[in-house]
Formats: sequence, C-alpha cells, structure tokens
Amino acid sequence: MMRISFEEMQATIRAAFVNAGMQEEKAGICARIHAESSRDGVYSHGLNRVERYVDYLCKNWVDADAEPSLDLKLGNLEIYNGNMGPGILNAMFAMDRATELAARSGFGVVSLNNTTHWMRGGTYGWQAAEKGFIGICWTNTESCMPAWGAKSEGIGNNPFVMAVPRKDGHLVLDMAMSQYSYGKLQVTRMKNDRLPYPGGFDHVGNLTDIPGSIEETRRILPMGYWKGSGFAILLDVISALLSGGLTTAEIDKKGKGSCGSCCQVFIAVDPLKINTQEFIDLTLEKTISQIKSSKPASEKGEIFYPGEQSLKKRAENRQLGIPVDETVWEKVKELAGIV
Amino acid sequence: MMRISFEEMQATIRAAFVNAGMQEEKAGICARIHAESSRDGVYSHGLNRVERYVDYLCKNWVDADAEPSLDLKLGNLEIYNGNMGPGILNAMFAMDRATELAARSGFGVVSLNNTTHWMRGGTYGWQAAEKGFIGICWTNTESCMPAWGAKSEGIGNNPFVMAVPRKDGHLVLDMAMSQYSYGKLQVTRMKNDRLPYPGGFDHVGNLTDIPGSIEETRRILPMGYWKGSGFAILLDVISALLSGGLTTAEIDKKGKGSCGSCCQVFIAVDPLKINTQEFIDLTLEKTISQIKSSKPASEKGEIFYPGEQSLKKRAENRQLGIPVDETVWEKVKELAGIV
Repeated sequence: MMRISFEEMQATIRAAFVNAGMQEEKAGICARIHAESSRDGVYSHGLNRVERYVDYLCKNWVDADAEPSLDLKLGNLEIYNGNMGPGILNAMFAMDRATELAARSGFGVVSLNNTTHWMRGGTYGWQAAEKGFIGICWTNTESCMPAWGAKSEGIGNNPFVMAVPRKDGHLVLDMAMSQYSYGKLQVTRMKNDRLPYPGGFDHVGNLTDIPGSIEETRRILPMGYWKGSGFAILLDVISALLSGGLTTAEIDKKGKGSCGSCCQVFIAVDPLKINTQEFIDLTLEKTISQIKSSKPASEKGEIFYPGEQSLKKRAENRQLGIPVDETVWEKVKELAGIV
Repeated sequence: MMRISFEEMQATIRAAFVNAGMQEEKAGICARIHAESSRDGVYSHGLNRVERYVDYLCKNWVDADAEPSLDLKLGNLEIYNGNMGPGILNAMFAMDRATELAARSGFGVVSLNNTTHWMRGGTYGWQAAEKGFIGICWTNTESCMPAWGAKSEGIGNNPFVMAVPRKDGHLVLDMAMSQYSYGKLQVTRMKNDRLPYPGGFDHVGNLTDIPGSIEETRRILPMGYWKGSGFAILLDVISALLSGGLTTAEIDKKGKGSCGSCCQVFIAVDPLKINTQEFIDLTLEKTISQIKSSKPASEKGEIFYPGEQSLKKRAENRQLGIPVDETVWEKVKELAGIV
C-alpha cells in the first residue's frame, strides 16, 4: 500500500482545484479539508472524492466563486443562501458564524439553503469543538435510500453530526442515516467479504450482508430500520423549513449532482456561558470513564467514545502517511498537472 | 380484550394521582398525558405506568408540588431547575416556554436539570406541533444499555424527538436509542413470539430475536449498532452541558428511580418567521407525496410518514375505546379508590 504525507496530499489536491478554476485561497482550504478527511480515515470523502469534485466544478454544478449571502437575520438565527458555492466553504462559514453568535448569546443557529455537498459532515463538528463550542449540524441530500416499507429510493441519507469539545479529545458523532455507505459496500465487495451485519435487502426482499446483492437492488438499510428512515425524513423537512430551501424531493428534480441545492443547519452552543470549565471537564470525564470501564463484549475488547477512533487513525496516518489507492492518486496528480 | 373510554381512563388516573398527594389540577394534566399515551398506542408509558408513578410519588422520588425555577437566562436560551417535580409538568412547561421564546425570536431553547421521567417523549413533540411550532427535544436517563463493544450497561436509552406541524397530520418522530424497549421484549416474550429483527445479544454473545434471551443478558441492542450507542452518549453529554445538570453516570449514583435527576433539552422554531404558510404546506406535501408514492416493499404494503400510525391508532382507540390489561386496570382503579 502506498502512503502519502498530509502536506503532499493537500498541495496536490489544491493544485487540482486551482486547475479547475478555484481561487488559490479557497482551493487551499478545500484541499485541506479533503486531505484531513483522508488523514482521519474518512477515505470516501477525501482524496477519493477529488476527481468527482473537479467534474462538478467543470460542469458548473458547483460555482467556485460564489459566496453565501444573508437571506434573513432573526437575532441569533441567521439564514444564508449558499448560492451553489463550494459546500465545504459555505458550511465552514456557517458553523463559524454559529459559534460567533453563540459567543454572544450562548446559542447560535445558522442555516443554509441552495448549497452543495459539504463532503465529510464531521468536519464541521470538529471545527466547532476546536473552537471550544458544542456543535450540532446536519444536511439533507438527494434521495438514495428507500423509506421504511418501500423498495424504491425516496429519502436522503442526511448525515447528522454532534460534537462536544474536550481537552483530551473531542467527542464527535458523525453518522449517516444508512447502516452502511455505498462506499463501504463497494470496498467490502472488492475484498470479496461480507458486511459485519446485514446492510440492505436482496432481490427476494430478505436482509443480506452480501454487499453486491445490496448494490444491485439499491435497497440499503436505514440504521435501526424504521428509526433511521423516520429520522432522515425529519432532518430533511426541518433543514428545508429552517432555511427556506429545498427538500430531498425537490433536490432530486434539480439533478445537479450529489447534494446540489441542499439545505444545512448549524447549531453552536458556548458551554462556558452555562458551566465552569471545571464542571465541564468533570462531567465529560465521568461519562467517558463510565463507558470505558464497561465490561468489554469480547476478551481484550476496547470501548471507544465517539471520535476516539478518528483521533487514533489521525495519529497513525500522520506518522506513517495517508494510505492511498495508487490509481486514484495518479489521477489527482494528473488533475493537478503533475506528470 | 377490555376497552375503556379515554374519559374514564383519564378520570381514574387522575383520582389515583390525587390519592398519591398531587394537587387536583396537576393530577388532571398528568392523567391526561398518561391517557393520551395509551390512546395513541404507547401503552408502556400510559395506563401501564401509573402504578409505578404512584410508587415514585409515595417514595418522594418525585416531588408532586415542586415547580421549575429559573437558573439562567441568556436571551432566547433559558435553563431551569426541575426541582424533582413531576417530569410531565416540567417538560410541558419547558416546551411551552421554548415556543414562547420562538414566537418572539424565531428560535427558543429551554433546558431542564434535576427533573424526573417525562414518560412518553413524543408528548412534547405533539405539544409543539399543535401550537404550530417545530419541536426538537431529548432527555438523558439512567444507564440501561451497554455501549457498543461492551456487555455491561453504561449508557442511557435517551429518547430523541422531532416534530413538524402540518395541517393534515403532524410529522412526529419519537425514538429511543435501543432497537426495542424492554416493554416490547416483555410483550413479545409473553406472546411466545420472536422480535421482527434481532434486538440484543444472548449468553454466547450472538445477536438474537428471542426476547427472553435478551432480558436475561440485559444486552439490548442500540439502534444501528455503534450509531445508536454514539448518539446516546452525545445526547447525554449535551443535555447535561446545556442545563448544568447530571449525566447518565451520575444519575446512576442517585438511584431515585427511572430518570430521577435527569436533564432535558427543548428546542422550538416558529416556521412562519422564516417561510410563508404556502411554502410550508407545499414543502411538506411534496415530501410526503414522494415517500408515500414509493414502490412498497410488499404487495399491498403502505409507507407511513413518522406520526401517521399514531394518528391511526388514536382514531381507532377513540372510536372503540383504549385496550387495557384487566389486571392493570383493576390496580389503577384500586389506587383511585374505586372498588
């Protein structure tokens, strides 16, 4: 397996984005976020996504120069039109703005309509936590999953993110509504492997852990069956009503690539406006210590808090370099003009 | 099966609560909420819960007379001490207050520390929606579920609720973090039945759909495996930090019954401060029509939006009476002083 340093990956992606028409500074930020996703082990939304992102830029499905513009301000709630600008930049702006509002009032909410794919949702949770804020955010998407009881796609996979700042490692939950991503199905199929637990339905309508069968029916399973399905629907509708934007049903009709014209919600809370640092530290330590001191399910098993495994992968990939698929890496180098 | 009218059920529960030392008006409200839960088909938190609630009142684990008191106000964010008062009354107060704040600012957040079991979480979602507001709320609880990777209980089952008002039936999601409740395991076991999908682990550590095996190990399954586990942890920590209250780890130590000293968060949004009624109606109809027109997974199958089945059950139980277990009903009548 080939490994690339974070710095080389970032610089290469940056050059690819500049070649696709992005301003240097914006390309640099987007490249950093893509490289950070790969560094943290979220390979599906890092380097592996660059070629498709460049394609969207070239098709003008993402407007490289667009900036968010204020639609409505209601105190510590602000609504912006993302103007189909780069989803990463819009989302970073929105979470940053939410933390600014929270720094003043304890609480801030920023929503975006008409934005584009934000790539790894966890990015904005980590962003809030790094600044010392609790962050909650979610996005809607085009439909890519059947609602519970259906066999044709009708709902989005709407990721939901919650983050809490902590000195010895932030707590970050980054979860999509499907049990597994299509990326996970593909990787598992290519290894000729089975999923750890059933991830969708086969042609007969039975649950299966064979990834190829699910890819064929496109009946991926919502996490928790009816629960993830209902959660996806509510996240969709609330993001649209909080931003005056489009739901999954209408995003489908636009057809501007993955998540084109989607809506997002960003909530930030300043925990120090409510508690002392000592109370916060103690609260988090008691919880984490209770979880980690549970009896492990398997001998020598370990119990992780949400975000802990990202930190482990981050440290590993920083030290050894980030693993890349050689074909993907060559393609991105080509887009960057490095031959 | 025996069926009781809503009115008779409410009056009987009310008398039981008055006998347990509650003021008449408060007893009436709590009785209505319990009866509504049974009426909507949430039997576990309706009539079936009355005996235990009376027990808590008698043990002073719930202070029948306590009222919430303001700890901190930060604009449209308010934090209250629930003073161990009746969880239903505290939660109704908090969601109502959140909608008042939202009516002024578009958005309102109210949190409670030191409160008690709110019974059916969906109650407060329906409450917000009935007033025309989007409602989001959650609670933490004592630990009753192993974290992912553990076999001993360490995390709460922290229900999460989202509601959106809609003319032809509100969208209401009311989900606990476990795939099934202990109530569902019990009912299924008593019917000598199996769960529709695996709901926990047996003694060997394998997933099983046999409810009795899960009741023995107490290894109920978080919805979506690691996802529900992580979600429960973040809901717990955020509710404590947003209210200056206790997390699951500390609630466990208090040991004042189910959810004694728990924390809750209530968020309300006024969608009409952001959108026209026409836009809201259209947005919801497009989404629901997309979901309901999906291809059903089984012949003659129907796809429901979240909340729809509660409405169906409500209509049925209003017409026919609410089904009750005769032993439970006799016990509540006894507590009410009706022989």
